[in-house]
Amino acid sequence: MRQLKLSKAFTLIESGPVVLVTTHDEKNNIMTISWTMVLDFTPVFAITTGEWNHSFSALRKNRECVIAIPTVDMLDQVVGIGTCSGVDTDKFTKFKLTPVQGKFVKAPLIKECLANIECKVIDIVRKHNIVVLNAVAAYVDLARKEKRTVHAVGDGTFIVDGRKMDRSKMMASKLPDGL
Amino acid sequence: MRQLKLSKAFTLIESGPVVLVTTHDEKNNIMTISWTMVLDFTPVFAITTGEWNHSFSALRKNRECVIAIPTVDMLDQVVGIGTCSGVDTDKFTKFKLTPVQGKFVKAPLIKECLANIECKVIDIVRKHNIVVLNAVAAYVDLARKEKRTVHAVGDGTFIVDGRKMDRSKMMASKLPDGL
Repeated sequence: MRQLKLSKAFTLIESGPVVLVTTHDEKNNIMTISWTMVLDFTPVFAITTGEWNHSFSALRKNRECVIAIPTVDMLDQVVGIGTCSGVDTDKFTKFKLTPVQGKFVKAPLIKECLANIECKVIDIVRKHNIVVLNAVAAYVDLARKEKRTVHAVGDGTFIVDGRKMDRSKMMASKLPDGL
Repeated sequence: MRQLKLSKAFTLIESGPVVLVTTHDEKNNIMTISWTMVLDFTPVFAITTGEWNHSFSALRKNRECVIAIPTVDMLDQVVGIGTCSGVDTDKFTKFKLTPVQGKFVKAPLIKECLANIECKVIDIVRKHNIVVLNAVAAYVDLARKEKRTVHAVGDGTFIVDGRKMDRSKMMASKLPDGL
């Protein structure tokens, strides 16, 4: 995996892909999250989570995680991870995923994913179950052939990335520097 | 436009489409937003916005808006709306869009969009520029042929919805009632 400029990391999240969020608290765990949002280009992200996710206690205690971006070929693993619990399941083993040590956090990167973002928790807005994350490093697997992410509709169906349309000239005045 | 059950409204947002947010404060305005997140099935949504958007003052003052969901055939309007300001532009006129009166808020629905959600502002988390919205009514245009939404990558490119994959059986235990 090649390091990605931090100023580009928000582009991994903005389009709204389903993501995997890893934590480490004695053992590794993974949760599937589709409720995510960019808060700032710097980059700062928000995810919605709370007590109902086993990972939340690790997130709150150690204040760090990795956001991993899976692709369409991993959909059954993504759904599987989202429908069992770290309480009684070692999800890396069950779903044949490989944890990779990051540089800044103990939560593991996922080798099989298209991209990984190491994040520190900078705030938890308890009233709305919002966890605010500051990304500290990002990586992409440029050798990976499958790059299409998936978007959860919420009713059990998922939309796969289709074609890309370029409006960067039209948007030039609004794009942040360094992209 | 046909009324959509409120319990299904989160499915309009969860996949991460670019949305148009309308406000009304003496006059109608529209902004393009891709930083959105579902906070609850009830449904409650979050959007990231602040002083840098002209619409923010109307949002803060009148505490209501409409989230409209455009489709791929409207991409140039969506980008155009995002690259000019309501300070000096009547965006409904400029982009040939039709405002339609909603039931609960003064902000207009957009007739040309696939779906519209009337929302009340229930909180503004100033520290993170998060506006928390409670949806009070939702509508979809079932007669519309083009249903593909677009997802902003953030670098000036947009991903169009591709094919849909169904994992609703696998996810049955996790889906909310009433879907």
